[in-house]
Amino acid sequence: MPMTKYIVSVDLGGTNLKVGLFNQKIKLKDRLSLSTKSFARRQDLIRSISDSIGSVTRRNRLSNNNILGIGLGLPGPTDYQKGVVHFFPNIPGWKNVNLKKILARRLKKKLYFENDANLMALAEFKMGAAKGEKNVVALTLGTGVGAGIIIGGRLYRGESFAAGEIGHIPLNEKGPLCTCGGQACIERYIGNQEIINQAKQVFKRKLGLEELSQLARQGNPKAIKIWQRTGQRLGVTLSGVVNLLNPDCIVIGGGVSKAGKVLYDSVKQTIRKRAMPIQSKHVKILRSKLGTDAGIIGAAIVVKHRGVI
Amino acid sequence: MPMTKYIVSVDLGGTNLKVGLFNQKIKLKDRLSLSTKSFARRQDLIRSISDSIGSVTRRNRLSNNNILGIGLGLPGPTDYQKGVVHFFPNIPGWKNVNLKKILARRLKKKLYFENDANLMALAEFKMGAAKGEKNVVALTLGTGVGAGIIIGGRLYRGESFAAGEIGHIPLNEKGPLCTCGGQACIERYIGNQEIINQAKQVFKRKLGLEELSQLARQGNPKAIKIWQRTGQRLGVTLSGVVNLLNPDCIVIGGGVSKAGKVLYDSVKQTIRKRAMPIQSKHVKILRSKLGTDAGIIGAAIVVKHRGVI
Repeated sequence: MPMTKYIVSVDLGGTNLKVGLFNQKIKLKDRLSLSTKSFARRQDLIRSISDSIGSVTRRNRLSNNNILGIGLGLPGPTDYQKGVVHFFPNIPGWKNVNLKKILARRLKKKLYFENDANLMALAEFKMGAAKGEKNVVALTLGTGVGAGIIIGGRLYRGESFAAGEIGHIPLNEKGPLCTCGGQACIERYIGNQEIINQAKQVFKRKLGLEELSQLARQGNPKAIKIWQRTGQRLGVTLSGVVNLLNPDCIVIGGGVSKAGKVLYDSVKQTIRKRAMPIQSKHVKILRSKLGTDAGIIGAAIVVKHRGVI
Repeated sequence: MPMTKYIVSVDLGGTNLKVGLFNQKIKLKDRLSLSTKSFARRQDLIRSISDSIGSVTRRNRLSNNNILGIGLGLPGPTDYQKGVVHFFPNIPGWKNVNLKKILARRLKKKLYFENDANLMALAEFKMGAAKGEKNVVALTLGTGVGAGIIIGGRLYRGESFAAGEIGHIPLNEKGPLCTCGGQACIERYIGNQEIINQAKQVFKRKLGLEELSQLARQGNPKAIKIWQRTGQRLGVTLSGVVNLLNPDCIVIGGGVSKAGKVLYDSVKQTIRKRAMPIQSKHVKILRSKLGTDAGIIGAAIVVKHRGVI
């Protein structure tokens, strides 16, 4: 009888480190999640990656021979071939880190690396909202605004593996400076922190995104207005993307997208109004189906296909 | 001895109708150009297409058997498979016209149809400024601002063959209404007519693009400023495209691009300043090499490759 092989995947984020154990049909068998906030030092975070993988494999009584490979999703531009992290916008201390070299010493398995927005796109394309489509843009709305692009049924990474930086499309000629070095990037208007700032100004107190979403669902006009404004702004940027790429669909996920209907409706209306008729008629605006698991699912898909995606 | 076969290609524009006769090495053997301004009626314009093709083949003593096929470049979104023109933004009277059906009656040859911006991109990619690159965005600056996109060495048309509408990426959240139904499209700031309007306001008299370019070359600070401003605006839009697509190069051509160095320098500087470091370091900003012949060359390439491009 052939030995059953499993896939381990990791999704490293600014807030959480998630590990998933999958069978080869990409069915989730076990999972583990821990906060990354406590790992200020890079070495500690790297150790916790290998420790968490160890925990999951040990408690499922899996030996090294049972593991097909390990897929890692990383929150920033990454050379997926070399396993080198260029940098992480939301985790300090990572610049040109050869993570493959470091992890290969601890984990004696084939390792696959990929940017997390690309993994989310891949997961939604293969098993989620965009299944069966050909040309897809999948967005994650959170602290940052990122995207993965599927062109002709394949992940499009760009020539230096940095494609999909939708959060850094300028919304205006002039506007607030951005951490990327640019100006007036859409992320500066609709990123987590900017929405929280707007809410604080409007409500004269600090409130989180969850509460702001809840208020909107309860019909609070001020909260609804903030989400509508966010949707309009995202819709303007996406109109440009739709005119440029004429995709089948746009999938929207990530924390901010939990605001739900009010946000999606506003995005859709703006695209219908602002994008060109042929493109806007064609494009579907979809909610992500895999939610916060898209990262580990995408990383598992990469391992299953041995990096040829 | 096998019969030498030739390719006929046509580039239909708002101003000129160009016909080229090429050998199979895509070397131009003969050409013909006429003004399209006099053809107000669609039928007359279509007749002049077949008449011009007839003139070129007759004067080169070519029979139908000598012609490999005919390639047609069209100035608007076109279903290249069916040969159906969706519409022409700058030639009235064309809406959902089955040009293939009409022309097939008169021209008993295999016909290939393609959007002109796509042909320009294809020509520059196969034989021009972007030769040897893989991911290319090629722009034409003129009455309209269009683009063709090469992804992974192949023409990317989008799902309804309408990709590349770079002129309709919004430059701002709000701004002048556009003929496309949108608002604040970059074309509304840097299209031919807008530059001419700006020049008229600044110089208090009507002057054409040629004169404005010449004034800039002679050092006229007002003319230089108009071109710099145009380059900056285009640069902001292209920064977004560079961040999104991480291409190898951007090729810029078309009438407006004749302004030359002052325009290109301004575009380049803006991209260096506004786009993200990884993407902006990678991308080359190039002048088109094939100029106004890019359309007929691209159409000939399509015929040579029998539409598989």
